[in-house]
Amino acid sequence: MPGTFDVVAIGNAIVDIIGRCDDSFLDRHEAPKGHMRLVDTATIDTIYKNMGPAIEISGGSAANTVVGVASLGGRAAFIGKVAEDEFGRIFRHDIGASGVSFKTPAVVDGARATSRSLILVTPDGQRTMNTFLGISTDLDQGEVDPEVIKASNIVYLEGYLFDRDEAKAAFRQAVDIANKAGRRVALTLSDSFCVNRHRAEFLALIRSGIGILFANESEILSLYETNSFDEAVRNVARDTRLAVLTRSEKGSVIVSEGEPVQISVEPVKKVVDTTGAGDLYAAGFLFGLARDFDLKSAGQLGSFAAAEIIGQMGARPEVKLSHLARMRGLIG
Amino acid sequence: MPGTFDVVAIGNAIVDIIGRCDDSFLDRHEAPKGHMRLVDTATIDTIYKNMGPAIEISGGSAANTVVGVASLGGRAAFIGKVAEDEFGRIFRHDIGASGVSFKTPAVVDGARATSRSLILVTPDGQRTMNTFLGISTDLDQGEVDPEVIKASNIVYLEGYLFDRDEAKAAFRQAVDIANKAGRRVALTLSDSFCVNRHRAEFLALIRSGIGILFANESEILSLYETNSFDEAVRNVARDTRLAVLTRSEKGSVIVSEGEPVQISVEPVKKVVDTTGAGDLYAAGFLFGLARDFDLKSAGQLGSFAAAEIIGQMGARPEVKLSHLARMRGLIG
Repeated sequence: MPGTFDVVAIGNAIVDIIGRCDDSFLDRHEAPKGHMRLVDTATIDTIYKNMGPAIEISGGSAANTVVGVASLGGRAAFIGKVAEDEFGRIFRHDIGASGVSFKTPAVVDGARATSRSLILVTPDGQRTMNTFLGISTDLDQGEVDPEVIKASNIVYLEGYLFDRDEAKAAFRQAVDIANKAGRRVALTLSDSFCVNRHRAEFLALIRSGIGILFANESEILSLYETNSFDEAVRNVARDTRLAVLTRSEKGSVIVSEGEPVQISVEPVKKVVDTTGAGDLYAAGFLFGLARDFDLKSAGQLGSFAAAEIIGQMGARPEVKLSHLARMRGLIG
Repeated sequence: MPGTFDVVAIGNAIVDIIGRCDDSFLDRHEAPKGHMRLVDTATIDTIYKNMGPAIEISGGSAANTVVGVASLGGRAAFIGKVAEDEFGRIFRHDIGASGVSFKTPAVVDGARATSRSLILVTPDGQRTMNTFLGISTDLDQGEVDPEVIKASNIVYLEGYLFDRDEAKAAFRQAVDIANKAGRRVALTLSDSFCVNRHRAEFLALIRSGIGILFANESEILSLYETNSFDEAVRNVARDTRLAVLTRSEKGSVIVSEGEPVQISVEPVKKVVDTTGAGDLYAAGFLFGLARDFDLKSAGQLGSFAAAEIIGQMGARPEVKLSHLARMRGLIG
């Protein structure tokens, strides 16, 4: 039975604080270029103090993905945790205004704030994230609404949520509900540092029946502790029914039964900010999958959405993607 | 004696919440297109609820102007009032990170929040502002630091501050200190609706010795209650020593002794968002004036800075203007 939603995502609810810097600023603050690292309050305060002027835009990896699904014309929902504070209100407004159903109640607790990520964009457009995990990883089992999970064709899980036990338990519960309801479950590995932190658990989860795995090249290499992409592909083909591996300018590879499907990248006029490229690829692919596209067409839609988002600041599309995708003949 | 600062501005400290909408959305919410109106909490809440996803960027008219002065390589300071809340911290970070000295202490008062403006950008790039005046107009005389005023070549005053009596008194005090210290005082009329609210007081202030007046076409027509731009020019020539009148795509006119100086507009590739066009024109002109440029060169620098800002979202330059202006031969 088709669900009320094409995709529901469970992820960190985060507001991004985006500013520009040069590479030496990253070095001085020991921020690993192109990656996400978790930082404490003192570190985020120091970086914010030293960085240039910034803009605030709602973010969060899986949240960006469902906003992308809605922007493509899909029906999407989000489960995640914000505090009853300024950034929490911004997050709730933006995701709702983007057409995503978001019902998780805000938490009133002066001690815990809405999560935020300082995103430093270097002149080459690459983004380096410094995330202060506030209340978003306190998501607990009571907040995973079983009715929303059952009503969604695909349940999409953000690997970052493995960073705290409460959220991990909520995550496993969601997988359980989805499996029993015959829904598909997708997981994104989120970041190679995140994979390093949780390798054994990710592998166990994938082998226990995650139906769709998203990873970029450095994440999949980290997962299988190899330097060979081909070896990683052979491994992932054994462990999952469907894996989508993105490789930046080398395009993406969809690993399923038979030969892997190669998807080339969409040309981008100017790389402004790569924030959200992976999230929007996932949006396009998941939308395609929920609407029964073949794997290649779903991958091309992902590639298109990723190209659109790196031509602008932030990970939320400034223009409705459904219109652009229709003009390009990617959706009907 | 040259001051420590080229320009100090006294204005509303505001965070802009910028989103896109179509013209019918403005109609439905009775927002006068292209203008700023003051709204209460209920109205700002309704508009925010109904509008699409937004981004948050520090703003405030005079604050944008001093950030522009700093971006051109000038020394600038700002006096304005924020609350000790999330938006107050964003405002303070951004103006400081832009190189502007900002020492006005934040107010700890749970009942009064930092001011914010909902800016609705229509497809033609025009911006319509709905401002909720929080704590910024409570600026009082104790907060106008006389040492900063005395140390600045030009004191720049934002007309919007006339909307509450406390700020108006602070404003008059600043004029007084500046006059005694032999500093130049500049005033921007801010908006034609603002002129309507305070016409008599503005005229009295201008005639009492404001040395430099900034106005756009609709503001100067409103000030002199005329439909004839030429008549307004004749009037303003009698009332002030120097007036700078901006006319959107018709360029600008500098009214001083002798014939008015005409400045043509800079070509703009794509109008993204006109927010800050007037503020940045003032930045270029004031920087030029503080550095002893002739009027025409100061006007051309203003015109250049305005053109740069309307090619991006928000009123704070994404790139350092001094570099661009130097490449164009506008500054040495």
